[in-house]
Amino acid sequence: MTRERFVRAYERLKSELLNDRAFNFDFTPETRQWVAKMMDYNVPGGKLNRGLSVVDSYMLLRQGTEVDDEDFYLACVLGWCVEWLQASALVLDDITDNAYTRRDNLCWYKLPTVGLSAINDGVLLKCHVQAIIKRYFKEKFYFLDLMELWNEIGLQTAMGQMLDLITTHTGAKDLARYRIQGYRRIVKYKTSYYSFYLPVACALLLNGVRLSDYVELKNVLIEMGVYFQIQDDYLDCFGDPEVIGKVGTDIEDYKCSWLIVQAMELANESEMKILYENYGKSDPKCVAEVKNVYRELDLQDIFLEYESRVYKHLVSTIDAEQDRAIRDILKSFLKKIYRRKK
Amino acid sequence: MTRERFVRAYERLKSELLNDRAFNFDFTPETRQWVAKMMDYNVPGGKLNRGLSVVDSYMLLRQGTEVDDEDFYLACVLGWCVEWLQASALVLDDITDNAYTRRDNLCWYKLPTVGLSAINDGVLLKCHVQAIIKRYFKEKFYFLDLMELWNEIGLQTAMGQMLDLITTHTGAKDLARYRIQGYRRIVKYKTSYYSFYLPVACALLLNGVRLSDYVELKNVLIEMGVYFQIQDDYLDCFGDPEVIGKVGTDIEDYKCSWLIVQAMELANESEMKILYENYGKSDPKCVAEVKNVYRELDLQDIFLEYESRVYKHLVSTIDAEQDRAIRDILKSFLKKIYRRKK
Repeated sequence: MTRERFVRAYERLKSELLNDRAFNFDFTPETRQWVAKMMDYNVPGGKLNRGLSVVDSYMLLRQGTEVDDEDFYLACVLGWCVEWLQASALVLDDITDNAYTRRDNLCWYKLPTVGLSAINDGVLLKCHVQAIIKRYFKEKFYFLDLMELWNEIGLQTAMGQMLDLITTHTGAKDLARYRIQGYRRIVKYKTSYYSFYLPVACALLLNGVRLSDYVELKNVLIEMGVYFQIQDDYLDCFGDPEVIGKVGTDIEDYKCSWLIVQAMELANESEMKILYENYGKSDPKCVAEVKNVYRELDLQDIFLEYESRVYKHLVSTIDAEQDRAIRDILKSFLKKIYRRKK
Repeated sequence: MTRERFVRAYERLKSELLNDRAFNFDFTPETRQWVAKMMDYNVPGGKLNRGLSVVDSYMLLRQGTEVDDEDFYLACVLGWCVEWLQASALVLDDITDNAYTRRDNLCWYKLPTVGLSAINDGVLLKCHVQAIIKRYFKEKFYFLDLMELWNEIGLQTAMGQMLDLITTHTGAKDLARYRIQGYRRIVKYKTSYYSFYLPVACALLLNGVRLSDYVELKNVLIEMGVYFQIQDDYLDCFGDPEVIGKVGTDIEDYKCSWLIVQAMELANESEMKILYENYGKSDPKCVAEVKNVYRELDLQDIFLEYESRVYKHLVSTIDAEQDRAIRDILKSFLKKIYRRKK
């Protein structure tokens, strides 16, 4: 039901972006058609977890009070802004990574009629976020805080991507540069802020409170984001491709994955040698060698241990939280990701 | 003197972006070094016309009153934001256009250590603009107007780039699609808004007035921007490479240039055939054929006629302007570009 209403909100936003004078551009038929196709291809096709989590969090904050259609729609609008921001980042990162598919389709830039015009499309999607926020929230007392939040997270996400690119670049010269501290920093900036903190921060602002009163909440959500990414890295190698819906290529792509970070800490001399010789190569034999070392090092068990440890820690942090709605939000996030298989 | 003080302001801004806790990112040495190098390579190396025009316009608005160091610096800050926005667009557009050099250097993305990481650098430069504006203007009463101005112009510039890409794409199938109305629309959105309107609008906001009282001013500046771009297109073909500092490649690149737009309106059947057969090809013989047709059609004279006509029109519009400072600003813009040879 929530999902259905959320999906309907996309159609309204799209139609407004294409037809509304508020957006200060007089479209030609060609540009209108291009933007419509580009949005449809890139914005709505994901799992919508991030966008829906704005709505879910907002509903938990409002528990016990009736939420009218207008308020519900505004939560959907901010949820879609998260999806829009993510679409912008994915369109651009796929070009940088020379990726081929995304969400079971060709990457946008891989379409013959698109190519590197996709760069401007990525830029435009980010402009849309600002434009949508202005259109719907200009008169709200929390408008400035909202703009500040989005600008800050835009900057942090770009810095996270930069950290990732630089780390992978130096890691390609020496695997030993892949360390847990650097790993956590990348994930915090590149993923956690926009995927975990941003949705809840949006819900809080919508509900009229000040973010400065929720500093601890931010840390918990960042921690959950790191946990989420570690799961992602684990599933990329050890998950069931049928279940996760893709074949992982982190080893081939020389990714600074949690697994290689662990392996670099635990490997003996001969295992280290195997990792150096085989990591980052697309030959399936090399990939198999790396996975063998991972298995020798019991990385599956180490992951399970990490998972129980972080779970316990998160549960006790959440239980110590005074505000019931905040507790419920954090629990709901944790429940969605704990022991996930996809 | 103004230029010197303006250039000094860059060093201060750069140092703040790299060291200031206000920007909410704890740099690693590697990221700090990368961002520093990336900014130095892309932000300050142009002619600085756009940035300086913020300062010049502001000084004209303040004529008769003393401008203290703080106010002068704030004008420099917004001037640099224009240069920063342009740097972001150039870094990204050069990738899309597969360009090789920019401002006498290799394009940023062409550096071996950079490559497609440049996409994220372009995104980051745009984030810097928001961050700088927030840092310096958060407490000003015109802060919201300033944010709105920059967001709007960011969107319009991205839409202009899209128009350009789509037009060039359809023009590559049929030259006849290059028409003056489409040409003007591209230039208006892609160039005029950020190069001509934005600097003056920034100066006005700094001076504490409301932009909604200056609607006519926007139209004049947009018109000047179109004139400026037409000169650019003319000089690309007929200018002296020694003077303009580059060899034009609009014909080779299938650009929707003012010259081809004029030619498509004036060519007879046989000239049309030559244009269709030779436009957009890198063979110097093809380029020469196109230039021959341009000469047969007297495009040089037609340009000179356009130039006197638009000049007269702009002068009479400016003379009709009530506000003396605004008249001075517009005259100073016009003086800088009228009959320019570079």
